Amino acid sequence: MTILRQLGDAILEEAASAQQDTRAYVPLTVDTVPAYLTALPAVMEILGGSTHLDCVEIGDGNLNLVFIVRAQDDPAKSVIIKQALPYLRCAGDGWPLSRERMEYEHMALALEAEIVPELVPAVYHYDRAMSLIVMENLDRHVIMRKGLVEGITYPRFPGHMGHFLAHTLFHTSDLYLASARKKRLVGLFSRNVELCKITEDFVFTNPYMESAENRWNPEIDDVVQRIRAHTRLKCEIAALKDGFLTRTQSLVHGDLHTGSVMLNQEDTRIIDPEFAFFGPMGFDIGAVLGNLALAYCAHEVHSTTDDARAAYQGWLLETIRETWDTFAGEFLRLWREKNEGEATRPAFFAQCGGEDGLDIYRRQYLTGVLRDTLGYAGCKMMRRQLGIAHVYDIDCIADPKRRAVAERLALAIGARFVLERQYVQSIDEMLAIIKTTKEL
Amino acid sequence: MTILRQLGDAILEEAASAQQDTRAYVPLTVDTVPAYLTALPAVMEILGGSTHLDCVEIGDGNLNLVFIVRAQDDPAKSVIIKQALPYLRCAGDGWPLSRERMEYEHMALALEAEIVPELVPAVYHYDRAMSLIVMENLDRHVIMRKGLVEGITYPRFPGHMGHFLAHTLFHTSDLYLASARKKRLVGLFSRNVELCKITEDFVFTNPYMESAENRWNPEIDDVVQRIRAHTRLKCEIAALKDGFLTRTQSLVHGDLHTGSVMLNQEDTRIIDPEFAFFGPMGFDIGAVLGNLALAYCAHEVHSTTDDARAAYQGWLLETIRETWDTFAGEFLRLWREKNEGEATRPAFFAQCGGEDGLDIYRRQYLTGVLRDTLGYAGCKMMRRQLGIAHVYDIDCIADPKRRAVAERLALAIGARFVLERQYVQSIDEMLAIIKTTKEL
Repeated sequence: MTILRQLGDAILEEAASAQQDTRAYVPLTVDTVPAYLTALPAVMEILGGSTHLDCVEIGDGNLNLVFIVRAQDDPAKSVIIKQALPYLRCAGDGWPLSRERMEYEHMALALEAEIVPELVPAVYHYDRAMSLIVMENLDRHVIMRKGLVEGITYPRFPGHMGHFLAHTLFHTSDLYLASARKKRLVGLFSRNVELCKITEDFVFTNPYMESAENRWNPEIDDVVQRIRAHTRLKCEIAALKDGFLTRTQSLVHGDLHTGSVMLNQEDTRIIDPEFAFFGPMGFDIGAVLGNLALAYCAHEVHSTTDDARAAYQGWLLETIRETWDTFAGEFLRLWREKNEGEATRPAFFAQCGGEDGLDIYRRQYLTGVLRDTLGYAGCKMMRRQLGIAHVYDIDCIADPKRRAVAERLALAIGARFVLERQYVQSIDEMLAIIKTTKEL
Repeated sequence: MTILRQLGDAILEEAASAQQDTRAYVPLTVDTVPAYLTALPAVMEILGGSTHLDCVEIGDGNLNLVFIVRAQDDPAKSVIIKQALPYLRCAGDGWPLSRERMEYEHMALALEAEIVPELVPAVYHYDRAMSLIVMENLDRHVIMRKGLVEGITYPRFPGHMGHFLAHTLFHTSDLYLASARKKRLVGLFSRNVELCKITEDFVFTNPYMESAENRWNPEIDDVVQRIRAHTRLKCEIAALKDGFLTRTQSLVHGDLHTGSVMLNQEDTRIIDPEFAFFGPMGFDIGAVLGNLALAYCAHEVHSTTDDARAAYQGWLLETIRETWDTFAGEFLRLWREKNEGEATRPAFFAQCGGEDGLDIYRRQYLTGVLRDTLGYAGCKMMRRQLGIAHVYDIDCIADPKRRAVAERLALAIGARFVLERQYVQSIDEMLAIIKTTKEL
């Protein structure tokens, strides 16, 4: 007899049996990594069994230790180690941050591996006590943001990302899950409070007000002040923050900018889901499309000829459209084929048109997701010009006056996304906002 | 040094220390109740210390054993025992239902006692292993629904209920709570899956489709079929169900009809919060106002003269208005005075009008709550005519033809609430819908 496993069984069982882990936490160093790995058979298999290992530490940004480990006799055999530090790395040990976040990254990666294994890094080992994950080294891939700055096109990205969004967001929603299963998963991820708080502060609050850590180009001070004083815009940002705080639509990645994508011309992987929690679908989709729009703004300056600018911005616009269209098409297909959740049980629509009646609701639902997408894209575009964390696409423009061109355009598009989202009916209108906006 | 306690400390600490309870569960009987109580000093104090106790079992409806226990030498000294049975009582032991629901009732009563102790029954003892609560016997109070059928007015009800709604919904929202505290409380209540599922089935789904347990007056079969076939209405009900499944705005009572209110001319108590979970504020407010509107429909038939009908229906309409106005006024006052949560930090609005700017958002937020209120009120009014659970107000009308008058009116008002809610700006419009609706 086959025992049918359900989505999330693994992490729910693990959570139910998890003991207080009393083993010691020790941050690894390049010297201690090899001995640590040789005790792990699953990892040693990947590394070809050799105990002669080369280890390099690479920064991953703000939160963690990251090591690349290679077999000396066959450097093509390698793994990544990601270990959480008990403080925010970029701020030093004065900003404590619980190592528990690795638990959420592990759970999110486990769920994503059940849903879209081909689009996430393989996990070889998880060590709760050490707050570390040993995973696939994606050394044929680059961080998407860097590729975008260089003007590289990725023809398979819209298909891959649209698929990732549709499958992860659909399968963790009430459209697919029974309500008890969904609520248990919501409960598990509801404890990822620290990383949610980072988003609450640095995406939805501090960038739009006086706050010590904000930094902005003095060249755009006029528009920074205007945004802070714009009551209607602030009310809409508050409403979007309310959605972030109170809606458990799907498990979202939670930090899905183009720095969380590693890719090449054939393959795409989504990394770093430590911010994962149950929130609005549009928060993830908006992160993707908003960061593509930021690249559009950056190329207002990066491109060296009008033709080059038109070509690359055109590709970015088409990528936004295709990513949304792939998401929406795939999401609708999944909903029609696997309408197994609590939300829209088929018998409910039997007497009012069946699938045709339900399709009316599906279109209405997706319009709501699109409007959320614009709203969250807008917040993410604005906060990158106003707050503590900027994006390399624009920050790498050395001349403040030229950088201001991209920044002003990003703020203007972001504000329109937030203010006009409730009137938008289709992705065409999102593109029209990008194309017709003049800088603020 | 004073240690400041925060809302919910007690239940969070209890949940953190709760062990698997290995003591036995035994349903009590009138014969075993006295011995059980004499072992509980806190309860014996209420009962005056006498071990001579009279015990009567009273049904509470569907889910539980309920006993009244009185001291023989002073019958004014009494307590109520409410004990969960491991099955749905009205369906016999063939419909298992976990006793865990008493845990949520206990947690909700504990939180409500921190917020509005004067509006809930006092709890004297909670026994997790036995799934029972010993609490205040409200024998000077009647179930509100019965009083409404008799045409009794309760002048203090709107003030009390408006206060209950404002204080419980505000203090458990992100407007008051820090985000980590809020998320931990959401996580605790996210496990109340069985009772949420009852609502998902019997409020949002089955009544509007073919389902074996539905029952309806054959006199209104035409309109029952019309509702089942009404695509636009069904899409709106699906959207309201989606809100029930995915929004964690506040801790809601979850079953706040007029059968969950015990009152008299001076005092009001809200009982039976076993359905408590984090959901939309409008779900609770809609339950209250929708059940008052059901009483309005019932009095279309109950009242014996036109004057009596006009007078009592007028009182019901004023009660709806005053309950909302008290809620909205008190909620705004709390938000202005205790804006301590994550959602709308005061500094965020400092440069765009301060409190005046924030007040614009507050009005927009309350309009959203009002629209949700109409939507959920509408679902609750309709399902009581179409599904398994009817209301005594209307069901007690013996003549099917006369009963149909009230039922058709309830369905017509409920459908308009659902369909027209997004156009409503004020409570006046909700009252206008009630007053101007002709039966379907």
